Amino acid sequence: MLSKSQISFVNALHLKKNRKDRGLFLVEGIKSITEFIHSKYQVDSIFCCEASLQKFSSISQDVKLVEISEADLKKISTLTTPQDALAIIRIPEKTPLRSESFLNKFTLLLDGIQDPGNLGTIIRTADWFGFSEIVCSEDTVEAYNPKVVQASMGSLSRMSVYYTDLPAFIKDVQIPVYGALLEGVSIYETAFEHPGLVVLGNEGKGISQNVIQLISNRITIPRFGGAESLNVAVSASIICSELKRRGF
Amino acid sequence: MLSKSQISFVNALHLKKNRKDRGLFLVEGIKSITEFIHSKYQVDSIFCCEASLQKFSSISQDVKLVEISEADLKKISTLTTPQDALAIIRIPEKTPLRSESFLNKFTLLLDGIQDPGNLGTIIRTADWFGFSEIVCSEDTVEAYNPKVVQASMGSLSRMSVYYTDLPAFIKDVQIPVYGALLEGVSIYETAFEHPGLVVLGNEGKGISQNVIQLISNRITIPRFGGAESLNVAVSASIICSELKRRGF
Repeated sequence: MLSKSQISFVNALHLKKNRKDRGLFLVEGIKSITEFIHSKYQVDSIFCCEASLQKFSSISQDVKLVEISEADLKKISTLTTPQDALAIIRIPEKTPLRSESFLNKFTLLLDGIQDPGNLGTIIRTADWFGFSEIVCSEDTVEAYNPKVVQASMGSLSRMSVYYTDLPAFIKDVQIPVYGALLEGVSIYETAFEHPGLVVLGNEGKGISQNVIQLISNRITIPRFGGAESLNVAVSASIICSELKRRGF
Repeated sequence: MLSKSQISFVNALHLKKNRKDRGLFLVEGIKSITEFIHSKYQVDSIFCCEASLQKFSSISQDVKLVEISEADLKKISTLTTPQDALAIIRIPEKTPLRSESFLNKFTLLLDGIQDPGNLGTIIRTADWFGFSEIVCSEDTVEAYNPKVVQASMGSLSRMSVYYTDLPAFIKDVQIPVYGALLEGVSIYETAFEHPGLVVLGNEGKGISQNVIQLISNRITIPRFGGAESLNVAVSASIICSELKRRGF
């Protein structure tokens, strides 16, 4: 049985402030935790029900495993329906953003994405399409938010997510900047030039003024019907697909 | 001030059973409600704060407007952060599915989608790309679920969403059936034939066995990285985009 102090330690990590202070975050579900074990991340401890204890002990002997009841899991989970296991994982040291590493590929830039489900879905999709980095503005939702981790379905374990001053980063890298906007050249007709940056903006307000000024190519997903806009994770996915279709 | 019975009447509509029994559902937010007012749907009543009262009375004189406080809106809203207004809208009479109306276009078929956010996002994206119908299996989440309505961002007002026995429907329509699967021909290389049906399956289990048997073309979104799968709304969006890029 978990002690009160164990329960309050884990529950503190539901909040961003505590994750930052302690350098720890939570991952739930056997599949996602397994992907983090096999990644560059350092897994601190895993709280799991009896059924999955054997599985985790066979994967890794270094991780501290704590068997808990379903009732206890419910007390520490961030989910309405907990998923067998919850891991505490170390937030890695920040690695510096080196502009030269963006000169041979396309990279997604997220400017103020607020919804954690959207960021998680973008991380998952970017991972599917073989992107390995995402660069976010400082006001984009935190990648270690439990809802981001959940929606990324393990893909966060393979993706480097940077937070930086986007205008400064764009000026530094000096490659074409494609901005996803409601008015622009159709993505089907855009002459994408490799390498490039693709900017997606906030759910309500779009791309911020400071970043808009630095866009070299305004691109748009053509509209054929009545909807006023697309979900930002959907827009990101369609653009990633179009880049991959062209062989970038 | 709202009476207790008014509050409980609206709150009952948070549940599927009551929506079905009473033939009513809820839409929140000025923008979405405005789109329903301008659609084929019949708006029964609108509960709104003082700030938006004038706006709604200028749009429509037929709708019953009830001014309420923000505190009262909070009591009847399905949202954590209510959005100025909540409307009660009539669920339209079911119109029969006529197979001949699917012979001149591509149509999305959803087989067991469970997450309301996913269905809402698919409705929004399909509307963006000019699709006007979606056909769902009986076990797909209900289109009038408040989270579906919310994620559709008003697009539900323009989309006909049918629920039917998918295998029977597919056999009846007799046009090519493209199934989105993890293994299949790349969507970039598929020779899509117009008209067609595009099937997307359940978030965890994919397309059901009964429907898989009826698929004429297995299609897939090529994978370049580590993610095991794509979110179903993302997959639907990428396929819709690819169809539109080809001019279908």
